[in-house]
Amino acid sequence: MRFYNKSPFRIRVLAVFASVCITANAALAQRNAMVDDSIVIRKIYEGALTNYQSYENLRYLTRKIGGRISGSPQEAQAVRWVKSLLVQLGLDSVYLQPVTVPHWVRGAKEKAGMITAQGKTIQLDICALGGSVATPGKLRAGVVEVKSWAQLAGLPDEQVKGKIVFFNRPMDPAKVEAFQSYLEAVDQRSKGAIAAAKRGAVGTLVRSLTLAKDDLPHTGAVGYEEKTTKIPAAALSTNSADRLSQALQTTPNLLVELEMNCQQLPDVQSFNVIGEIKGSAYPAEIITVGAHIDSWDLAEGASDDGTGIVQTIDVMRIMKGLHPERTVRAVLYVNEESGASGGIKYAEMAKRSPEKHLAAIESDAGGFTPKGFRIDASPETARRIGAWAAWFKPYQADGMEPNQRGVDIAPMKGIAKALISLDCDDQRFFDIHHTAADTFDKINRRELQLGTAAMASLCYLLSKNGL
Amino acid sequence: MRFYNKSPFRIRVLAVFASVCITANAALAQRNAMVDDSIVIRKIYEGALTNYQSYENLRYLTRKIGGRISGSPQEAQAVRWVKSLLVQLGLDSVYLQPVTVPHWVRGAKEKAGMITAQGKTIQLDICALGGSVATPGKLRAGVVEVKSWAQLAGLPDEQVKGKIVFFNRPMDPAKVEAFQSYLEAVDQRSKGAIAAAKRGAVGTLVRSLTLAKDDLPHTGAVGYEEKTTKIPAAALSTNSADRLSQALQTTPNLLVELEMNCQQLPDVQSFNVIGEIKGSAYPAEIITVGAHIDSWDLAEGASDDGTGIVQTIDVMRIMKGLHPERTVRAVLYVNEESGASGGIKYAEMAKRSPEKHLAAIESDAGGFTPKGFRIDASPETARRIGAWAAWFKPYQADGMEPNQRGVDIAPMKGIAKALISLDCDDQRFFDIHHTAADTFDKINRRELQLGTAAMASLCYLLSKNGL
Repeated sequence: MRFYNKSPFRIRVLAVFASVCITANAALAQRNAMVDDSIVIRKIYEGALTNYQSYENLRYLTRKIGGRISGSPQEAQAVRWVKSLLVQLGLDSVYLQPVTVPHWVRGAKEKAGMITAQGKTIQLDICALGGSVATPGKLRAGVVEVKSWAQLAGLPDEQVKGKIVFFNRPMDPAKVEAFQSYLEAVDQRSKGAIAAAKRGAVGTLVRSLTLAKDDLPHTGAVGYEEKTTKIPAAALSTNSADRLSQALQTTPNLLVELEMNCQQLPDVQSFNVIGEIKGSAYPAEIITVGAHIDSWDLAEGASDDGTGIVQTIDVMRIMKGLHPERTVRAVLYVNEESGASGGIKYAEMAKRSPEKHLAAIESDAGGFTPKGFRIDASPETARRIGAWAAWFKPYQADGMEPNQRGVDIAPMKGIAKALISLDCDDQRFFDIHHTAADTFDKINRRELQLGTAAMASLCYLLSKNGL
Repeated sequence: MRFYNKSPFRIRVLAVFASVCITANAALAQRNAMVDDSIVIRKIYEGALTNYQSYENLRYLTRKIGGRISGSPQEAQAVRWVKSLLVQLGLDSVYLQPVTVPHWVRGAKEKAGMITAQGKTIQLDICALGGSVATPGKLRAGVVEVKSWAQLAGLPDEQVKGKIVFFNRPMDPAKVEAFQSYLEAVDQRSKGAIAAAKRGAVGTLVRSLTLAKDDLPHTGAVGYEEKTTKIPAAALSTNSADRLSQALQTTPNLLVELEMNCQQLPDVQSFNVIGEIKGSAYPAEIITVGAHIDSWDLAEGASDDGTGIVQTIDVMRIMKGLHPERTVRAVLYVNEESGASGGIKYAEMAKRSPEKHLAAIESDAGGFTPKGFRIDASPETARRIGAWAAWFKPYQADGMEPNQRGVDIAPMKGIAKALISLDCDDQRFFDIHHTAADTFDKINRRELQLGTAAMASLCYLLSKNGL
């Protein structure tokens, strides 16, 4: 009886003791793993911050190759260059994925002027929106300014027909996040020409999507649809937009003259560039990290998205040294700016593949100081990734926000468990976005490399822990 | 009996009820106050972000007045201009506080070259450190490179005497905070010439304090002391430092030739500019907000500290509209860069005054995206200010770190309850700090105004709640 009485007690004590030991061991193991991870991430950051090659790669890409609009020889050159850099890293495989891309050319520099009551022409700073049709020679027409869709809808036909619709709703300057203000204003560029054409307009001018007040017109893809007449669409610098708006106050019937020689050439065969490190333990579990190769034509495409390209390449350099347990794959997409056919093509392949895509990561937010990540995933998956914020806290990149913003990875929705975009300080981005000022000198090496380190650290955590 | 029994019960119930009501009312009042504060701070941010005047003020300061080294006519012009802007705001009082400042002039552009074994001279990019003595005509001497104080101390006399000591310890690129790396390397500039002279050296070259690799020399005050011979001290661009270091590997006895024509002129009478809004309830409780008027001479002094000047003025514009309960005083200091006599002078006045200084705030960290504040105060006061972090969270400026970095407010230690410096993203700062590249085009209007809003919000909370 005593025995029986004692035994269960002793068994209980032993069990509790064992459980404490196991818990302690597990906790210790977990703690060690955490210490290890913290050391690995520290090394990733130190390695990235002391690397100067990636910045030199960006210098080459921007200064030697330059702007690389879809279908251009420069895009093809960039594809070859990106491939050669991935090959030099000694990855397990590097290959090209064929993608058909549009080939639009701007032609001679666009001209625009407003004709005053005195018959004087005052120059307006414009550029064609990407993909726009040309003007039929010189287009001269009256202008109707609108600041909302409701205002356009409320205008009688005779005030729109034959006119140029001037979309002049500014980005909201009161918001702290410039990117958010951009997303709320971009509909004027993507839907303006369609809405205006449906009302019989002959062209559109869109206020440049920026919070700066200057003379730089910002291009970007115009939205057209099959069944609606394609009318010429141009961006006006904010200073020119203000000037035109003011002139319309005093001279509502003033005429604007536009001349744009852009042209849509036949589609071109281009390629996504893909390079991968095979996972040592789970090779069929895939983490993609990427950016887009193409840019607009007005400048060198430094921040959009040269930074993303060189960051992605540098992430692969870092990950190669870490021998990831899961496959890490760089995908450098073509044609983000005017159709996202590169992103769509990759997603089609991923959907057909037996591989399991854990996460698709993209850097396309300018390459400025990273704030963290933006995540699209199930609540449970987002929570798991969000729990890693602590790793990024020492590097001031622990923001874990919803609503990822990578256009190239968007088609991976429903295929990859998580879509993740690098989130960067966005105050400077929309000053240069899609303009002639998107040049190498705007990029800071350390900001660039902090983004590289953040993405590499995330790749490391994903490759080690899965999702 | 029932009555007596019931009464205390009823009294207890009523007391509890009353206490609940009071607590609920207090909580409601507190909640309303919090909602009010959150609305006020939102309005401060919206007002700052939609303001373009402050940025135009910076354009004027940098492009029209330009570099304004202590004692220069440009500094005097900036003093008058700052005063006039404060007067235009209609503050309760605007006045000048006399400060004697040094007047050092750079003279003709400095020259330096290293003479190879073949007798060829290879140019080195240098500039005199601020306050340096000139070279006696051309100074030609051998060079000894040191990377630590221990290394210098360990050198035999004959290896230092008659030589130029080349301080070539780089800023640590692996740290995330560039400002921290700067603080850890700046001793070479502040103590190098003294230590070298004590060992019989005839000059010093200091590797520029930056993490960029380029041809820009970074000036900054050289440290001298009374009893030690003052030897010429210059900064070498990082590229030139690397080149010289490499050349010394192969030719340890190579000669360097230096030519510097700088000169210390007689001291000049200058002025701190002070403007204030008298507190409506507690006028003797003072919150100062400030920046420094002087800059180095190599460029326009845009980020150091033009941004701080226009932010301070804009904080006063915003605070005037808020009718603060405590006095908010702008102090624009002269001579931060070479002696901080403006800051010292203000602190002397504050110490003698019966006023109670709650907080001294300074913006002198570049004017880039604010991360929050750095605070020197008692643990209790720091905790009180730290508890306001929540107000800044929506604006991503909720960092509350120790170790404030404002040189001008440092003499207020022991006088003001809290010394607080605006903490900014510092990746770009040390690329341009004290160089010819510290120009207006490096500044982003929104980053600037986010700093203004953060400081104005802090002033509001301090002026409402006290410390």
